[in-house]
Amino acid sequence: MASKKRNKGQAIPQGVVSRLPVYYRYLSELESKAVERTSSAQFGEAVGCTAAQIRSDLSYFGSFGQQGYGYNVSDLLKQLEKILGLHRTYSVLLVGAGNLGKALASYESFRALGFAMKAIFDVDPLLIGNYHSGTIIRPFSELSEYLSESTIDLAIIATPKGATQEVADVLVKGGVKSIWNFAPIHPVVPDDVLVENTHLTDSLLRLAFRMNEQEK
Amino acid sequence: MASKKRNKGQAIPQGVVSRLPVYYRYLSELESKAVERTSSAQFGEAVGCTAAQIRSDLSYFGSFGQQGYGYNVSDLLKQLEKILGLHRTYSVLLVGAGNLGKALASYESFRALGFAMKAIFDVDPLLIGNYHSGTIIRPFSELSEYLSESTIDLAIIATPKGATQEVADVLVKGGVKSIWNFAPIHPVVPDDVLVENTHLTDSLLRLAFRMNEQEK
Repeated sequence: MASKKRNKGQAIPQGVVSRLPVYYRYLSELESKAVERTSSAQFGEAVGCTAAQIRSDLSYFGSFGQQGYGYNVSDLLKQLEKILGLHRTYSVLLVGAGNLGKALASYESFRALGFAMKAIFDVDPLLIGNYHSGTIIRPFSELSEYLSESTIDLAIIATPKGATQEVADVLVKGGVKSIWNFAPIHPVVPDDVLVENTHLTDSLLRLAFRMNEQEK
Repeated sequence: MASKKRNKGQAIPQGVVSRLPVYYRYLSELESKAVERTSSAQFGEAVGCTAAQIRSDLSYFGSFGQQGYGYNVSDLLKQLEKILGLHRTYSVLLVGAGNLGKALASYESFRALGFAMKAIFDVDPLLIGNYHSGTIIRPFSELSEYLSESTIDLAIIATPKGATQEVADVLVKGGVKSIWNFAPIHPVVPDDVLVENTHLTDSLLRLAFRMNEQEK
């Protein structure tokens, strides 16, 4: 199957990027069930899109699969791991050790994907000094110093929204280039810093929409 | 602007559904800043799509906006609230009072949108009987009985993956028609039950992908 001509630096469409994790999950599931191959038709049906969509999305990254055979599951999974950057590990730092922060810090799936929690910061004196999932909770006032001595690939912000921008500023000043933000406010950062804003309410609103559609 | 012909029961495309919460967030933000109107061009730029996409998406639900004026923010917000089902309140139940469950149960934004936590269930004797955000944590063994006496619009599953299907079975048997699932396993349910599966790893993988793209 032909691969799309893609110039260096050309952005992958947002829709493709958002489907890659879904493809990765599907292939991981197949591999865990020792399934050896899948067709674009089966693949598409399982993830809720057309066979053509699967082929088109994958073609951004090279030629995968063979006419008449389909895809070798473990080969394609390995390729997807490389595409998604899962062939390496990431040092992660968390700011905000409330319930959500704690849930994220102890999320087994993150660790399994290569994301290792290196440090946790909070402003709450009742939390500081405690251990969570084997990591000590440090005072937020020490974040700058910590960043000057450590290399962190990714910082998670799980603070109340009032603190988001201040936290982002300290992270950026300390050289952090990727932020995963759970606060409902989008922090403003320089162009060379990546921010992924996750809104838990979006899923809830999609569900509410479907509930009301069904009742009609 | 013309509205699309939509037959009763015709499904709204998945892409449209997934963008509606984003539109809702943008309009809420404008309203909180007392902005009175917006154009499809401004709207599109703010949410990362084209003006044509905005107009096309909204046209599934009726005629909004006026040529040369754009959209009245508070009018469109009210319409979107109706479309998303936010003109009513929802009784919510949570199964799984670990860190993630607790974070969800005390999430202020959910309450503000009309989702009221009515009951929390867990199997852990250390949690049962405690209060979280004003709601007592009940034993999971009492869930069936609770459902036979109460009307619940939506149940959240925030259990380890091993328990997901069993929890879903009890919920479905008890008449729950909508499930918001955070476990990494998709529970199997009858066709008339809605499930929204939220995968926190998907956002992380999107970010990892963008980190690796940037480094290239």
